[in-house]
Amino acid sequence: MPLIAFSCVSSIKNEVYETSNHQDFAIAIHGGAGTILKENMSDSLEQAYLNVLSQAALAGHQILKNGGSSLDAVQASINLMEDSPLFNAGKGAVFTNDGHNELDASIMDGASLNAGAIAGVKQVKNPIDLARLVMDHSEHVFMYGEGAEAFAGEQGMDLIDQSYFFTQRRYDHLIQVQQAPETSASNSPNIRGPISPNQSPFYDPILKNAKFGTVGCVALDQFGNLAAGTSTGGMTNKRFGRIGDAPVIGAGTYANNQSCAVSATGWGEYFIRGVVAHDIAAMMEYGGYTLEQAASQVIDKKIPKMGGDGGIIAMDHDGRISMKFNTPGMYRAQIDTKGKLKVGIYKSDALLTK
Amino acid sequence: MPLIAFSCVSSIKNEVYETSNHQDFAIAIHGGAGTILKENMSDSLEQAYLNVLSQAALAGHQILKNGGSSLDAVQASINLMEDSPLFNAGKGAVFTNDGHNELDASIMDGASLNAGAIAGVKQVKNPIDLARLVMDHSEHVFMYGEGAEAFAGEQGMDLIDQSYFFTQRRYDHLIQVQQAPETSASNSPNIRGPISPNQSPFYDPILKNAKFGTVGCVALDQFGNLAAGTSTGGMTNKRFGRIGDAPVIGAGTYANNQSCAVSATGWGEYFIRGVVAHDIAAMMEYGGYTLEQAASQVIDKKIPKMGGDGGIIAMDHDGRISMKFNTPGMYRAQIDTKGKLKVGIYKSDALLTK
Repeated sequence: MPLIAFSCVSSIKNEVYETSNHQDFAIAIHGGAGTILKENMSDSLEQAYLNVLSQAALAGHQILKNGGSSLDAVQASINLMEDSPLFNAGKGAVFTNDGHNELDASIMDGASLNAGAIAGVKQVKNPIDLARLVMDHSEHVFMYGEGAEAFAGEQGMDLIDQSYFFTQRRYDHLIQVQQAPETSASNSPNIRGPISPNQSPFYDPILKNAKFGTVGCVALDQFGNLAAGTSTGGMTNKRFGRIGDAPVIGAGTYANNQSCAVSATGWGEYFIRGVVAHDIAAMMEYGGYTLEQAASQVIDKKIPKMGGDGGIIAMDHDGRISMKFNTPGMYRAQIDTKGKLKVGIYKSDALLTK
Repeated sequence: MPLIAFSCVSSIKNEVYETSNHQDFAIAIHGGAGTILKENMSDSLEQAYLNVLSQAALAGHQILKNGGSSLDAVQASINLMEDSPLFNAGKGAVFTNDGHNELDASIMDGASLNAGAIAGVKQVKNPIDLARLVMDHSEHVFMYGEGAEAFAGEQGMDLIDQSYFFTQRRYDHLIQVQQAPETSASNSPNIRGPISPNQSPFYDPILKNAKFGTVGCVALDQFGNLAAGTSTGGMTNKRFGRIGDAPVIGAGTYANNQSCAVSATGWGEYFIRGVVAHDIAAMMEYGGYTLEQAASQVIDKKIPKMGGDGGIIAMDHDGRISMKFNTPGMYRAQIDTKGKLKVGIYKSDALLTK
């Protein structure tokens, strides 16, 4: 059985929680992949990330432990990351070219294959909640912008002012990106080819890879049901009503009890073209790949071959977890079927044991 | 080798065109699936459909014959259907709840897995052309609404007035849908479960299934490259910035030289949840299914089991064609690798020979 385990890089305890008498349950989250390097990270910032990642994983795990659904667990874990300014989702969403914040999210139920997705919303505090409302209370799957907000209003969701999303760091990043020379703007939406390792025009290590700051969660509940969800602010300086992979069912999010649940974080254009989340599930269902093999095939081979980068978290119907990324780091945490919490940031935190 | 063939239902000739000395090439198109019944169709209307379908298939085939790319063929065939008021795409787009027309389209290149998609545009005469521009001239894959139109403007595309899309039939249909009782509104976006055969509140047989009027095309060129494209006006009376499957890469459109090219037309919500186009390709690539087997598995089994309906056209890397639908009819045409043109509308036009 392939199993990813990675050591805890800080003082976060590797606590073991009681497992239930029912079917195994487990949860995994990510807070974005990218050029996350230890030499660019202060101890206090590292600790802040580890704290929120731990809290988010624990929030979802508590729901699973109490017999709640994987959908509720996914939503709760993502809410915690959306409410933190550290991640590019909810409160910490990056800015568009015209100085706004446009948020995308999606959620999928592996039992029914039901799904909800929204893109381009500007006044929704927790986009994953609206994706859930779309799934549960509309006949549609995918809504955009003001239309999606009109639906939110009809459902009794409070719409908030855009000023909620203002964070100085994200705004400064927009200005940096817009003032950066075309040739070196590694975060610019005007580059599709691979980024050269020499391209590093940004001085804020946290924001350097803002296009990768998406958050996501996959979970298996005691009823054997998988779920996946993803929430993002998209790409800094995005224009043209750009939609990335996060709200695209099959690309950024997919869940199917027959195979696995997947949430992606990466260069959205490549993840859409690769139909990444569904591709991993399909390799398992039709090709007999294990979760780890399928995830590796897509993230270590297919996406880099196209010129893209990023990562995924995935969970199969037995609660096995895969966390694959081809970037230097990915904010991530998991509580496996044994109840063990593990949190990591850098590539070196990953310890593959088979 | 599974081969779909269906008889020509009218005076359209089954012309045979020269095949090239190069690799085989072929094209297939659809103009929407739905409750299309011969008893509801006048001879003149039937002839009008057959004429446009034939012209559209021939336009793309001519490009392939001259050594053009499958992408150019897909675009040319779809343009012809977009310019006809008969189909729910371009000129004949249905109306939204607030009396507008919002168009979606996508295109994908099976050689590079490059793709372009747009949704919710209101001023673009030929949405498939804008999807192609997104693919060829932007670093993004998926754009929405005014943002996508801003990109179109920057690319020198003329934006047109919404009045271009006004057709009395489509507008009357909107009024019919909006005035129909909730319980019998089979075209209402407020129904997710299967439609009862007894639900038929609309008197215009052409418009009865307006949510299925999407157009699409798949093609194989002499260089062995597959391509797929889809264009639609969406669902009559749609609200909330609803996005269907047509612009979603993996759901409504997918092309990959390793497997096949697919364009879908159906109840978009189910096709998104089923990641239909990529699912067919994945069954072939990982599961060893033939094109026909994979298409049948998805359209005859998976989608009806979920409660949805619709159809697909698909082509494998040898130019084999599958046209699967679980509705009474699907407007369709093909010119196979032998250069034989076939056109059909009703289920009875399909003759499966193995």
